Amino acid sequence: MLKTTSKLLVGAALIAGLATTASAAKTYKWKLATTWGPTLSPFIDAPNNMAKMVEEMSDGRLQIRVDASNKHKSAFGILDMVKGGQYDMGHSASYYWKGKDINTLPFTTMPFGMTAPEQYAWFYHGGGLELMQKAYKKHKVLSFPGGNTGNQMGGWFRKEINSLEDLKGLKMRIPGFAGEVMAKLGLTVTNIAPGELYTSLERGTIDALEWVGPGMDITMGFHKIAPYYYTGWHEPATELQFLVNERSFKKLPKDLQQILLTAMKVSAYDMYIQNYDMSATAWSKIESDYPNIKIKTFPKEVMDAMKKANDELLVEKAEGNPLLKEVLDSQKAYQKKARKWTEMSDYLYLKDNL
Amino acid sequence: MLKTTSKLLVGAALIAGLATTASAAKTYKWKLATTWGPTLSPFIDAPNNMAKMVEEMSDGRLQIRVDASNKHKSAFGILDMVKGGQYDMGHSASYYWKGKDINTLPFTTMPFGMTAPEQYAWFYHGGGLELMQKAYKKHKVLSFPGGNTGNQMGGWFRKEINSLEDLKGLKMRIPGFAGEVMAKLGLTVTNIAPGELYTSLERGTIDALEWVGPGMDITMGFHKIAPYYYTGWHEPATELQFLVNERSFKKLPKDLQQILLTAMKVSAYDMYIQNYDMSATAWSKIESDYPNIKIKTFPKEVMDAMKKANDELLVEKAEGNPLLKEVLDSQKAYQKKARKWTEMSDYLYLKDNL
Repeated sequence: MLKTTSKLLVGAALIAGLATTASAAKTYKWKLATTWGPTLSPFIDAPNNMAKMVEEMSDGRLQIRVDASNKHKSAFGILDMVKGGQYDMGHSASYYWKGKDINTLPFTTMPFGMTAPEQYAWFYHGGGLELMQKAYKKHKVLSFPGGNTGNQMGGWFRKEINSLEDLKGLKMRIPGFAGEVMAKLGLTVTNIAPGELYTSLERGTIDALEWVGPGMDITMGFHKIAPYYYTGWHEPATELQFLVNERSFKKLPKDLQQILLTAMKVSAYDMYIQNYDMSATAWSKIESDYPNIKIKTFPKEVMDAMKKANDELLVEKAEGNPLLKEVLDSQKAYQKKARKWTEMSDYLYLKDNL
Repeated sequence: MLKTTSKLLVGAALIAGLATTASAAKTYKWKLATTWGPTLSPFIDAPNNMAKMVEEMSDGRLQIRVDASNKHKSAFGILDMVKGGQYDMGHSASYYWKGKDINTLPFTTMPFGMTAPEQYAWFYHGGGLELMQKAYKKHKVLSFPGGNTGNQMGGWFRKEINSLEDLKGLKMRIPGFAGEVMAKLGLTVTNIAPGELYTSLERGTIDALEWVGPGMDITMGFHKIAPYYYTGWHEPATELQFLVNERSFKKLPKDLQQILLTAMKVSAYDMYIQNYDMSATAWSKIESDYPNIKIKTFPKEVMDAMKKANDELLVEKAEGNPLLKEVLDSQKAYQKKARKWTEMSDYLYLKDNL
């Protein structure tokens, strides 16, 4: 099954399986719906850059209108709108619809999981992309990497977390598998659209939240309310996703399919690098410009409990779900292999060059 | 000057400055010369994949023939051939022609320099790409990232290196700025085309060499002659380069220019990920399949001497060369900024998750 999906859906082979003989001269006008607001860099830049590249490379034959969340008013309805055909494409994060289909969750990131280069290697050389198509097949939607945030920060808290007890009962915005982990540790966990995060924290709807990293977080102003800023454990390489309605894709001629695939791929990598730059720039000014932010690392007791809860949940959630088990096993095996090389190369090098 | 170059040559803006009104229907047949042999993965895959993407996206209107080194017999003559117009494009490593133009050297990698994501962020958001165009301007050649190897291993030695004394007098293949460092430490330094590396080591033309990392090195068989394999310090993120003859580029219509730029960019990122996978796979089998390879780290005395020599050479080489100084200063400043974020994100995360 995996092999058939793989042959049909990956890279250039994808085209051979799905292309039609539509005229090369025809102009295609597509719509893309994103979870993000119209100025939320770098997330919104990924679909905008993709659409611009597609238009330029196709000399205007494929035009993609990007609708931000203020237009369609459905930040978390992206999968449904692409599946239903209201939109040809979407740009969001796969773990936002874990309640509808948990099998799509792991393609964003996993707590204690792979770093960005490890995860891209898994997607493109370790079977990850094939598994992602397999998970989305029932929705008749194709899915591709849509931009990585790199290692995320562990979130903003009003008070210092000195023990597991300090976490219990907190209401926290934290999506994905990390949300499951935090729920197991006794937090009340929720997800909130990006545009409502600050107000929710200000009004006490939530006590704590994680968002992305310094490049995106500080402009949101969270530090004014919750100045304890924790280092990351839960989202080591958050990959956003492009979704493409399968019927729309099939209607494109081969050259436009290849243009679209290439533009999605490069804009995803580009967002990783853009966010690296934004985070580096913000971090370099954090001490001078925001002296009240308190950088913290979770104490060992808390980290150990998170790891234990994560391990237990991985077993629990995969029970009776062979596809989820296949995805999690594939990620685990690849991470084990890649992490040894990461240790010998970048980690050892950085240790001597900080 | 930098600002003007930047406006003309980067990203979409590049096109506006250089595009002509050539007919969109015309077919362009280009030739690309590489330093690499026809099967040298992943280096040769970067230009091959780029050419394939260009052909598919342009529906055959731009065709690029990739000539490996066995065809043109001039592994290190790539810049000259692209500059002279014998080839429209090249794929090589900028530091291979440091003897002709030292200003192009730093765009490959620098000892104790940036890691791959840091360096890509410098290229695309820290002024690196603009500086690379500035350095290549006198050659009337455009230059773009062409694929990263990630952190390279420090090389293969016949005997264990326990002191600076053990290095002195060794003949070693090591290119780039690291070669300058090793020469200062008393080694005789040379560069040798990839296809002649094994024979040179076997015949004693050289006593030691560095090549890339486990993914590429082990299939070369170096361990049979020189089993001491040292961890890296000298090439933390080796970026290959695509070179494009400026006149050839100007002749392309805008859409083909954009297709070419996008295909170069994505195939460069892709090579980084491909080599990550190759290295991870090779490393995971090194203990079981190659038990005689002895993994070592240079002793502190040697590392300290390398750092000192590197610092001195950076000052020395930049003296009286304002462009080189500008490039080195830009890299140093960006690295300082980005490394703090790398430490807080991936480094701290990896420390707890090895």
